[in-house]
Amino acid sequence: MSIKVGIIMGSKSDLPVMNDAAEVFKLFGVEFEMTVVSAHRTPERMFKYAQDAASRGLKVIIAGAGGAAHLPGMVASITVLPVIGVPVKSSNSIDGWDSILSILQMPNGIPVATVALNAAKNAGLLAVQILSTADESLAVKMQDYKDELRKKVEETAAELESE
Amino acid sequence: MSIKVGIIMGSKSDLPVMNDAAEVFKLFGVEFEMTVVSAHRTPERMFKYAQDAASRGLKVIIAGAGGAAHLPGMVASITVLPVIGVPVKSSNSIDGWDSILSILQMPNGIPVATVALNAAKNAGLLAVQILSTADESLAVKMQDYKDELRKKVEETAAELESE
Amino acid sequence: MSIKVGIIMGSKSDLPVMNDAAEVFKLFGVEFEMTVVSAHRTPERMFKYAQDAASRGLKVIIAGAGGAAHLPGMVASITVLPVIGVPVKSSNSIDGWDSILSILQMPNGIPVATVALNAAKNAGLLAVQILSTADESLAVKMQDYKDELRKKVEETAAELESE
Amino acid sequence: MSIKVGIIMGSKSDLPVMNDAAEVFKLFGVEFEMTVVSAHRTPERMFKYAQDAASRGLKVIIAGAGGAAHLPGMVASITVLPVIGVPVKSSNSIDGWDSILSILQMPNGIPVATVALNAAKNAGLLAVQILSTADESLAVKMQDYKDELRKKVEETAAELESE
Amino acid sequence: MSIKVGIIMGSKSDLPVMNDAAEVFKLFGVEFEMTVVSAHRTPERMFKYAQDAASRGLKVIIAGAGGAAHLPGMVASITVLPVIGVPVKSSNSIDGWDSILSILQMPNGIPVATVALNAAKNAGLLAVQILSTADESLAVKMQDYKDELRKKVEETAAELESE
Amino acid sequence: MSIKVGIIMGSKSDLPVMNDAAEVFKLFGVEFEMTVVSAHRTPERMFKYAQDAASRGLKVIIAGAGGAAHLPGMVASITVLPVIGVPVKSSNSIDGWDSILSILQMPNGIPVATVALNAAKNAGLLAVQILSTADESLAVKMQDYKDELRKKVEETAAELESE
Amino acid sequence: MSIKVGIIMGSKSDLPVMNDAAEVFKLFGVEFEMTVVSAHRTPERMFKYAQDAASRGLKVIIAGAGGAAHLPGMVASITVLPVIGVPVKSSNSIDGWDSILSILQMPNGIPVATVALNAAKNAGLLAVQILSTADESLAVKMQDYKDELRKKVEETAAELESE
Amino acid sequence: MSIKVGIIMGSKSDLPVMNDAAEVFKLFGVEFEMTVVSAHRTPERMFKYAQDAASRGLKVIIAGAGGAAHLPGMVASITVLPVIGVPVKSSNSIDGWDSILSILQMPNGIPVATVALNAAKNAGLLAVQILSTADESLAVKMQDYKDELRKKVEETAAELESE
Repeated sequence: MSIKVGIIMGSKSDLPVMNDAAEVFKLFGVEFEMTVVSAHRTPERMFKYAQDAASRGLKVIIAGAGGAAHLPGMVASITVLPVIGVPVKSSNSIDGWDSILSILQMPNGIPVATVALNAAKNAGLLAVQILSTADESLAVKMQDYKDELRKKVEETAAELESE
Repeated sequence: MSIKVGIIMGSKSDLPVMNDAAEVFKLFGVEFEMTVVSAHRTPERMFKYAQDAASRGLKVIIAGAGGAAHLPGMVASITVLPVIGVPVKSSNSIDGWDSILSILQMPNGIPVATVALNAAKNAGLLAVQILSTADESLAVKMQDYKDELRKKVEETAAELESE
Repeated sequence: MSIKVGIIMGSKSDLPVMNDAAEVFKLFGVEFEMTVVSAHRTPERMFKYAQDAASRGLKVIIAGAGGAAHLPGMVASITVLPVIGVPVKSSNSIDGWDSILSILQMPNGIPVATVALNAAKNAGLLAVQILSTADESLAVKMQDYKDELRKKVEETAAELESE
Repeated sequence: MSIKVGIIMGSKSDLPVMNDAAEVFKLFGVEFEMTVVSAHRTPERMFKYAQDAASRGLKVIIAGAGGAAHLPGMVASITVLPVIGVPVKSSNSIDGWDSILSILQMPNGIPVATVALNAAKNAGLLAVQILSTADESLAVKMQDYKDELRKKVEETAAELESE
Repeated sequence: MSIKVGIIMGSKSDLPVMNDAAEVFKLFGVEFEMTVVSAHRTPERMFKYAQDAASRGLKVIIAGAGGAAHLPGMVASITVLPVIGVPVKSSNSIDGWDSILSILQMPNGIPVATVALNAAKNAGLLAVQILSTADESLAVKMQDYKDELRKKVEETAAELESE
Repeated sequence: MSIKVGIIMGSKSDLPVMNDAAEVFKLFGVEFEMTVVSAHRTPERMFKYAQDAASRGLKVIIAGAGGAAHLPGMVASITVLPVIGVPVKSSNSIDGWDSILSILQMPNGIPVATVALNAAKNAGLLAVQILSTADESLAVKMQDYKDELRKKVEETAAELESE
Repeated sequence: MSIKVGIIMGSKSDLPVMNDAAEVFKLFGVEFEMTVVSAHRTPERMFKYAQDAASRGLKVIIAGAGGAAHLPGMVASITVLPVIGVPVKSSNSIDGWDSILSILQMPNGIPVATVALNAAKNAGLLAVQILSTADESLAVKMQDYKDELRKKVEETAAELESE
Repeated sequence: MSIKVGIIMGSKSDLPVMNDAAEVFKLFGVEFEMTVVSAHRTPERMFKYAQDAASRGLKVIIAGAGGAAHLPGMVASITVLPVIGVPVKSSNSIDGWDSILSILQMPNGIPVATVALNAAKNAGLLAVQILSTADESLAVKMQDYKDELRKKVEETAAELESE
């Protein structure tokens, strides 16, 4: 099975956040790769990663970054693949507002699918949903996943009600 | 050819914004449907729309709403399809901040692919990119689209430089 | 005596905040129930809870949630009961702004009575005030409660002045 | 039939906003009164209004104000009645943020049921819901009102779909 | 020597902040009083305090409060004395924004002299400056105080430069 | 009668706002002067103005500025007189937030008495209150002024109630 | 004389703002070039522009962009020249906050000299100051420019004082 | 070799932040000086520092301050040298917003080259870039520095990929 999703992040300090996406792919059995690509410190590496992604067989790219977060938008400007942006509340971020706005507010023509602050888990799930549009077995797994979420809430509710 | 994308909005007043997504689908030759579904005024209609979407053959849902914008997130809670949320700067919105935060900040487990404020055009392009993951011809068209964007900037630049 | 108020929350992690409402009802002798209902992970449960609330005899619903907090607004869209929303500053919230705006900024037609961030105590007091409009004995207790608040401030003031 | 709801506002310039609450009461057949009470320019009048409200038979007070909006909170500090606060985006307000925060963020002990910016219509509907807890006929009318909202959306949707 | 300044605060929990104003008055030899007056929990006490302040000989009132902070503005609405407002970053405040806006944004006609968040020290100094307009000896002390500030910076600078 | 208050502003474009302070002084019979002093374009003039103000007999300085508004704080750093800052929502300001924060958030030691955005009228009234601490006749006029405010609200209320 | 400064902008719609920088260079007699370079629509052109800038003899680059504004930061990541960023309040910007934060909040290692919102004039002046560090004649002109600013304020002040 | 850059800060408490600039100059072999200059507590010292800077041979000034941060802007108003402003998130700052806005939002005519919150390291690098415009050897070192940044990311990436 080939690698379907590339997870990239601007700094290794983003790894504790971005790892949540990797966990999702392990759960759903989706092949992925994960590396560090900095728009600002390795612009050429970023360029090359984005240019080659589709031809290497990737279907989705997840990019996480904080502060003036240019990685998701720049990768989206180069590739035709859907790019999911994860705003990271890094140490140099102003409560996450800079991370969010510099990923979300992309100009017309170049979308980035932005998820909540630090929500790499949701980035992973969104990537699975995107892959599911062409893979019925993943859609079934996603339905199971949602059923699990539901059951856990119902159990918690039952516990709280019986207290 | 079957309908691939459903465009829904919380109010008909969102139509001037959301129409930009429809224009993208006409350009790329993607079948779509467009209607009004209000999470707050027609919760059952919203429920039914979300529940039936996948079985009706839709692959992606684009949902636009403003203020306390619950439509994208609620639809995403019900369907397994990827949901793209468009924060609309409606008349009752506080400069768009409420629209953005109530769509973007979804809890773990239920992603919404959020685009920029009023950026229904980007929502349309993102939907095309998602469909492209299983349709090579769309990926080619998307590359052409990006080439067009580039050429227009280059022409503008040439004009400005020659002034 | 029947249950008059339902306290619901999007996640059990909201319990330390929402418990303050329960304490108010114990103090005022108002029957209540408390459970977990997630708009996003258990949408059908949420629907059913809201649909049945009035016929089960509830008079007021208090709903707490954080981040993109859709629970109060969605419940309000389904029931005719007054719904009090408590914005919770949960771990995934951006300083509470998302919680506040996604509960407060409801569209015309569907009000949510919003209280301060994490102010489940005030949600409880507001519910008592609502019930007091038809129960004179509760209004008397509320006046006593306010007198107590006043006396405590006066005692503190006397202490500070005599230091 | 006696007056059930008092609508007060800090300045006559708030009338175009606050009138929406009056329209709701006319629609639902609820007796109301409407006047100007300024916390800052007529503090004694405000005090007296709040002190007498319950004994005059009022059941709910709706108070609208903008900027450093103290009227709703101060009235709530004096009366035991439920107080609904309408943040008004007045000319001296900073995009409404001051109006919202100075009404919403009441300390523990003194709730104000806050609605969206300029949402006097929702304040009216919330007052009707509060009165409905002791008046079944109003609850029925509220259900009819919600049905009307639903139908209008369905009609709009049908129009849009047939375009 | 009579009491010239009244320091009041909405809650005893504001004392650690407000005490900085008291320290200023001890330094400058200005008689002051300090007590707790809550606009929301003791509205009548607040009213009486504000109404009597001028006739009791006070020249300036310093009022500190957090969250929906109505104390400074309400006192200013009742007295003709200058009122200095100290926005307190209390536990229920949203990073201080609510405290600041609900004190600063007073309507035309009723000023509150607002100082920085938690800046009770500056409130004390401002009160001294106000009293100095009629007391040359205080003006001299204020000049000495500023000279001290200057000298401390110069000493620190000399230390840093010699490191 | 000598000049008691100096009104200064960073740019003549602030005059329409700052003129409201002048109107207050005409109403109360307080001698004042008004001129343009720019902290950034005429730093030496600003220095000299602030240094001479007390010896020229001024009792209060009102300084208005917008954007990165340094005039009030810099004048306060040089003079011992109380300085009232008026944040102006100038054309280069971000909705007034920069004007407010750069005037309000002065460090310990150097207070600026900040009023609401564009509230030069309140700056004028605050100056009168400061002068009133040493001039009983001004205190009487201020009480009359407040009585007028009250009466106007009462008249408006009577009109609205009789409609 | 060779071209010293390159002015680039993300879109021709930024020209009315960015032209202010050009006017400064005409005033100071600094050779410049001006063109459109879009980080998102022409990433390769942006790359090439930044890579060649220093070897073409440019000394400073001024880059303006709005929304998720990546142009200044990306250019700064590629060139060793100082890059001045102008946040543009474009039509798709949220009151300019996104433009500011995505330019200002660059990570350690890659500075962008950010000026105020829409302040291309100041970007031009800053570029002149940078060039002045190696060109005494420009420093003299800059001192003259500042003297002119001062004189204009003094004239305006004289006019206002004589009114 | 003469001193090229002056690093100044409003308070010694800013030293842990501002020291990062000094480290950059040690790395690049640029002579610098560092001291405390407070716009508010030592306005005359600030004036003199700014007035003498150019004639003492300084080429660039880096000024850091927090809260209502006037130091960078005031120094820029007096000198013709380029001034780099570092917004410091000091203890009295509101999450850094006041520091940023009061440094960034300078009026037309008086630029401050603003870097990210607490980013004294970037201020140092920007100063080196400015000096590089007249010193080719510094430009070479800057290219080496960027190469180092790139290599570190590549090493980190290799490590992560091999895990």
